[in-house]
Amino acid sequence: MRTSIASVCLSGGLVEKLHACAEAGFDGIEIMDADLIAAYESPEEIRALCHRLGLTIDLFQPFRDFEAVDEATFADNMRRARAKFEVMQRLGADMMLLCSNVATATTPDFDIAATQIGALADLAAEYGIDIAYEALAWGRYVSDYRDAWDIVQRADRANLGVCLDSFHILSRGHDPAGIAEIDPDKLFFLQLADAPRMDLDVLSWSRHHRLFPGEGDFDLIDFLSHVILAGYRGPLSLEVFNDTFRQTDVTRTAAHALRSLHWLYDRTAAQNDWTDLQLDAPQPPCAIDFVEVSGEDLSAVERTLSQLGFTFGGRHRTKAVRLWEAGDARVILNEQVRTPGSRLVGLGFEVGDAAAAARRAHAIGAPQVFRRTYAGDYELPAVASPDGTEVYWNSRTAAESWLDEFEGRVPLGEDTAETALHGVIDHLNVAYPWQEFDEAVLFNTSVLALDAEPASDVPGPRGLVRSQVMRTADGAVRLAMNLAPPTAPELPRHVAIRVDDAVSAARRARARGLAFLPMPSNYYDDLDARFGLEPDFLAELRELNLLYDRDEQGSFIHFYTPTIGDIFWEVVERRGTYDGYGAASAPVRLAAQRGGPLL
Amino acid sequence: MRTSIASVCLSGGLVEKLHACAEAGFDGIEIMDADLIAAYESPEEIRALCHRLGLTIDLFQPFRDFEAVDEATFADNMRRARAKFEVMQRLGADMMLLCSNVATATTPDFDIAATQIGALADLAAEYGIDIAYEALAWGRYVSDYRDAWDIVQRADRANLGVCLDSFHILSRGHDPAGIAEIDPDKLFFLQLADAPRMDLDVLSWSRHHRLFPGEGDFDLIDFLSHVILAGYRGPLSLEVFNDTFRQTDVTRTAAHALRSLHWLYDRTAAQNDWTDLQLDAPQPPCAIDFVEVSGEDLSAVERTLSQLGFTFGGRHRTKAVRLWEAGDARVILNEQVRTPGSRLVGLGFEVGDAAAAARRAHAIGAPQVFRRTYAGDYELPAVASPDGTEVYWNSRTAAESWLDEFEGRVPLGEDTAETALHGVIDHLNVAYPWQEFDEAVLFNTSVLALDAEPASDVPGPRGLVRSQVMRTADGAVRLAMNLAPPTAPELPRHVAIRVDDAVSAARRARARGLAFLPMPSNYYDDLDARFGLEPDFLAELRELNLLYDRDEQGSFIHFYTPTIGDIFWEVVERRGTYDGYGAASAPVRLAAQRGGPLL
Repeated sequence: MRTSIASVCLSGGLVEKLHACAEAGFDGIEIMDADLIAAYESPEEIRALCHRLGLTIDLFQPFRDFEAVDEATFADNMRRARAKFEVMQRLGADMMLLCSNVATATTPDFDIAATQIGALADLAAEYGIDIAYEALAWGRYVSDYRDAWDIVQRADRANLGVCLDSFHILSRGHDPAGIAEIDPDKLFFLQLADAPRMDLDVLSWSRHHRLFPGEGDFDLIDFLSHVILAGYRGPLSLEVFNDTFRQTDVTRTAAHALRSLHWLYDRTAAQNDWTDLQLDAPQPPCAIDFVEVSGEDLSAVERTLSQLGFTFGGRHRTKAVRLWEAGDARVILNEQVRTPGSRLVGLGFEVGDAAAAARRAHAIGAPQVFRRTYAGDYELPAVASPDGTEVYWNSRTAAESWLDEFEGRVPLGEDTAETALHGVIDHLNVAYPWQEFDEAVLFNTSVLALDAEPASDVPGPRGLVRSQVMRTADGAVRLAMNLAPPTAPELPRHVAIRVDDAVSAARRARARGLAFLPMPSNYYDDLDARFGLEPDFLAELRELNLLYDRDEQGSFIHFYTPTIGDIFWEVVERRGTYDGYGAASAPVRLAAQRGGPLL
Repeated sequence: MRTSIASVCLSGGLVEKLHACAEAGFDGIEIMDADLIAAYESPEEIRALCHRLGLTIDLFQPFRDFEAVDEATFADNMRRARAKFEVMQRLGADMMLLCSNVATATTPDFDIAATQIGALADLAAEYGIDIAYEALAWGRYVSDYRDAWDIVQRADRANLGVCLDSFHILSRGHDPAGIAEIDPDKLFFLQLADAPRMDLDVLSWSRHHRLFPGEGDFDLIDFLSHVILAGYRGPLSLEVFNDTFRQTDVTRTAAHALRSLHWLYDRTAAQNDWTDLQLDAPQPPCAIDFVEVSGEDLSAVERTLSQLGFTFGGRHRTKAVRLWEAGDARVILNEQVRTPGSRLVGLGFEVGDAAAAARRAHAIGAPQVFRRTYAGDYELPAVASPDGTEVYWNSRTAAESWLDEFEGRVPLGEDTAETALHGVIDHLNVAYPWQEFDEAVLFNTSVLALDAEPASDVPGPRGLVRSQVMRTADGAVRLAMNLAPPTAPELPRHVAIRVDDAVSAARRARARGLAFLPMPSNYYDDLDARFGLEPDFLAELRELNLLYDRDEQGSFIHFYTPTIGDIFWEVVERRGTYDGYGAASAPVRLAAQRGGPLL
């Protein structure tokens, strides 16, 4: 599979874009004329730079609104075309994208369009250039790829074919099955973009909201299957107009973009059983092995964990690292750093095959993490997520692998066994700046093998917080992602421990002196209005500052600790088959925390 | 006119919102239940605070999805309603908003809806509460205000009326003429919001993109005329869900919001000739009197102006202020500050009646500017725009008023008269951070009496730049506003001088040693491809680094100086009746400047 990317996906000047694409590992690039026009480098210089960087110029897009026009306009368009073919010759680009006319077309007659495009192709042939004709979703008379193919057939020139763009086809709901009808030799080019489902005019949707594959709602795996099965053998090229990518770091975006193509191609190969082309299979996690918190002095975190009912799991035999446990919820406190505060920095998953997960992550392009290990330490392969959190994979349970590196564990006595907190990690919650959110979704999909639940907006006192849960099908692993408003300060992360009896856990924690996040009295009045709760139960919720939710599946009781450093803790109980996160209470909690929106 | 605002328009907690509304000068507030639920203060405390602040609680919005439901749901809804009426009694709120059911309605039968709402009204009557029923644009069976009025008539209760919301009516394109059919005693409440025209699903449009009156595309003047002529005498209340206002400074947003109501009411009164209710008439500027630049050392600016062909207009007789002139383009350099760099800080307009402009601005709520003047100095009334730029009004020309405060002016000799730059200020260009843009649009509309041209997006190397020109009908005064991408650094401003012959001006400036912003050679190749220019003319453009545009009306030739401090200068020539700003060249110029997007 050859990979390519349109220069419009990236920020900066053309030379920077070329360097970023080469560094990310793309094979080629599509150049939008506007990027060349704004560059001080001549076409010859760009050509030479691409050659040195090992990038092919797969496509050049010099103008629009060519065909189906009156004779005077056609004559001027041919003059424009010749000038651009001369530029392409200097650039060494041999394929031109021609989008269907949106503005100047005066006739719906496909024969006239074909005649004019045929003349363009003949002129292009003098320069050794191919023309790839594409139906824009908002083209005046041609907005369906099947009509573009019809016109290409009518024009019938050797150097004329079609360009397919997933956005233009899927946004209109056109069936990609028709791609099989196209002569494979005429499938000249393929542009890929994902997008969220929006009920917005298609031009605005396309210009501002496209995403890289795996980040939106389109079924690109099915789409790419149709294209490849139809015989397309050209590059997979990304054309993603997105307000965010246009302004964020070009090198990072290019690397992110290439990962999306690796993921898409792998999933397409898997769906079609092209076994020799697939990466290692995704390894959906079956449990959270541990979370890791770092900071130069974590004694305050330790006190909170202890008050919650965690028990001391021992000191690492070689490092300034301690373990705290609450049943299968394991928290590693790492004081090997010299940074103040406390941050959630690591996350361990139990998976079927840790080595395969790591190989797959590497092939997709996730950066590997180096961690110093000592003789006898259990080695866990790891990668860095886009926000820097390290993700570890373990094919064994903690007890079967790294647990015995910790010494001095306090075993539970008969008395403490009853009062200790006992649970599992229900979910983690991480907030992202707006410019990193889509990249994190792709990482969680492609590298961590999690699926996205529908997103929702939660009103907080500093703005709307977008909440997007990514999880395994069985709910054993859940990552709640938040997109914070741009003006919000950096946000703490939180870890939720699921227990069988949150009310008792809350009573015991309070007895140990833990102050919970206090909830307003008005909140309990509203709970009563909404649910008509038993007075004793309501009084208990109110007394303990517990939060409550209920739906058709069951109910949810939970509470929060105050924030220490950049982290806080939640204890949750799920009754029945309740599968949510207490979204209705989230605005109240956000207001109570006020330091920032912290769903 | 009484004024009110929904608590959801503002950021922060309820107490902060109340303080901000009172400080801005609102008479009342609508409280959304979610804001009360998240508050630690009891309903009684909120009631007492509103009383102290002089705010009435005009409306309370406690729940949705009440009517047209099955019997079991209805019974539970009545229970919910009673609980909320008790809260309202504690709060001292006597009108409840009931939105048409979007989720749980099971029948389109208006008689059933009327029966259930009638029962709600009877229960409300026990608490002395009125119900205002509103058709949401996405209501399941009721989405038209005329249907809401139909149901209110069927229910026929004294304490039941309708609430009208401009968004729900205008977004659906419903004719507000039907408001005249509603019994004026049944017009219980009015909610006002503007919005940009978008082809987006109405729920998302409403939840994220509402604007204050005067900032969007709705004809609210016509709408409010209908409502008032129909006999409505309640408060004008703003209900604006907007992602930006939710997260920006609450005090500033409240002041901004109230200005929008003052503007709207004034324009409505003017349209209807309610002369006793109008403010002073708007004073559209007929010319730009001057621009003012400040900085502790402006010698670099002075050198640039001199190279451009400006001539020295004298020193102010009492202040560290100098004047430079190019015909009717006057630039005041103010070195009375101790800040480095150079900033565009002031702007003078010639208007018909400067005192009236100032009175109007004051009535709308624009902050007045105090400037120390000395005996004999000509006094110009002034206000501060949202970004801090001071705007001065002058009913006379500079020569008739302040010009003789400057001494030592160098008169043009016969030789210099020919080579000096001679022109007017064509336009100013100011970039705003995203969170200040809408407020600035309202200021330019309501206080400066400018009209908005359609906005466009310009791709720059650091992201899309939204460009919105506000101008007088005759084009004598034009302000180009830019909305910069959030990640961009603070942006310089620029001043464009219009001359009769930009090519000669460029040659002379170059002879004086001014280096223009260099344009890429590829840009000229593209100009040629687009326009087929005369070779000599193209060579001249290329040689002098001039930019060029052409349309059906004429053509545009212009060039830019480099940026000095936070400001740069443009010289433009308009041939024929060309009325644009060279938008097609803007991406190239943005790339050439690269310090940031600076259209």
